[in-house]
Amino acid sequence: MAGCREELKLLGMWASPFVVRVQITLRLKGLSYEYVEEDLQNKSELLLGSNPVHGGKVPVLIHNGKPVCESSVILQYIDEAFSGAGPSLLPADDPYGRAVALFWAAFVDGTLLKARSQALRGETGEEKEEGRKKAAAAMETLEGVLRESEAKFFSARDGPGLVDVMLGGLVGSMRATEEMCGLQTFDPTTTPLLAAWAELFCALDAVAPVMPSVQRLVEYAEAMQQPRTDVSSTTN
Amino acid sequence: MAGCREELKLLGMWASPFVVRVQITLRLKGLSYEYVEEDLQNKSELLLGSNPVHGGKVPVLIHNGKPVCESSVILQYIDEAFSGAGPSLLPADDPYGRAVALFWAAFVDGTLLKARSQALRGETGEEKEEGRKKAAAAMETLEGVLRESEAKFFSARDGPGLVDVMLGGLVGSMRATEEMCGLQTFDPTTTPLLAAWAELFCALDAVAPVMPSVQRLVEYAEAMQQPRTDVSSTTN
Repeated sequence: MAGCREELKLLGMWASPFVVRVQITLRLKGLSYEYVEEDLQNKSELLLGSNPVHGGKVPVLIHNGKPVCESSVILQYIDEAFSGAGPSLLPADDPYGRAVALFWAAFVDGTLLKARSQALRGETGEEKEEGRKKAAAAMETLEGVLRESEAKFFSARDGPGLVDVMLGGLVGSMRATEEMCGLQTFDPTTTPLLAAWAELFCALDAVAPVMPSVQRLVEYAEAMQQPRTDVSSTTN
Repeated sequence: MAGCREELKLLGMWASPFVVRVQITLRLKGLSYEYVEEDLQNKSELLLGSNPVHGGKVPVLIHNGKPVCESSVILQYIDEAFSGAGPSLLPADDPYGRAVALFWAAFVDGTLLKARSQALRGETGEEKEEGRKKAAAAMETLEGVLRESEAKFFSARDGPGLVDVMLGGLVGSMRATEEMCGLQTFDPTTTPLLAAWAELFCALDAVAPVMPSVQRLVEYAEAMQQPRTDVSSTTN
């Protein structure tokens, strides 16, 4: 499907890690796209009309006029619609390998992000502490995946795959949250393989130019007067 | 891949709507499988070893010795690993159609179930009321999908697809929760198309024998001395 007439437009917001995931995927695939920065306080008609179900949440990818919403869905869509372009995020002819990757992708959003959200926004100190423990345990679990596979990436091959992009898109905002709230992220002492993975991932040509800096994210969060907000959980 | 030597074992618990989803999918595909009922208070070594990341949550599908966990992942896995058997849950050669289905599948778990959970387990009456409103809005949204497509099923063809199974697996437990807590489900006056869809879905040969009855689910919930628990949210 990847032809010269493909029109790809990404509606995003620079600080959203979910938008970063899509940008990384488009770049890994070597696809040209138009990036449209949205003001989330004053969303465009195009954004509201493209994702009415979720009130105009970013990211939205518009491919030849048709919108695709939710970062994890967009990543799979790009992988399938442009299967001829760049490396595959999911192993194309390996249903079991795909299922394993989808399981860990769900773990990143369903377990790790959920725990971090509880750690930051729990109603009581006890709840927050429980969230913090769960978040640390989730990072330990991901560390174990890298340890067991002995690969540089979660894709278990020489380049990043779906799980790498799902987790990798969050690296900037997780580090910013650590800076603001001290919530554990890619600690070389407790999770050395994850720490090395984050360095490697963020240095990739497809990643470095679109990964927001910690400093800019912290300034943004402070300007929003929501210093305790986990910027990794605002949109998806 | 669907050959006569395939070995499929499903570790489940009869009241879990997430297990019901998998059973429906296996039956829609016409696949033979061994069903193993688990005692969740005393999980088998096989279950704990097959889904260690989530502490032995059901369902787990074991295919030729290899475990697949998380109902939405299992459904996609069955569809891909047994693409030659029975109808496809996701349109095989239509990346956009697949993305639309994945979006609505995520909506069922991420928006509808989350709202129902808030309605039932919110900390305050206000929070619960907010959850109730969100759950009603989510049902309205799903009603709109059926209205717009003018199809009997969410798959927009003559048989059920991924979204039908994701939502359909929940029907019994949603009705049981309504009986116990009055939380809106498939109301013929407010959401007539959804109500008709639920009737049609539950009458399918692949569904009727594995859909637990409302009465049995209510008795089970009462016996568990958790009458306010949403049995549709206990496992996935």
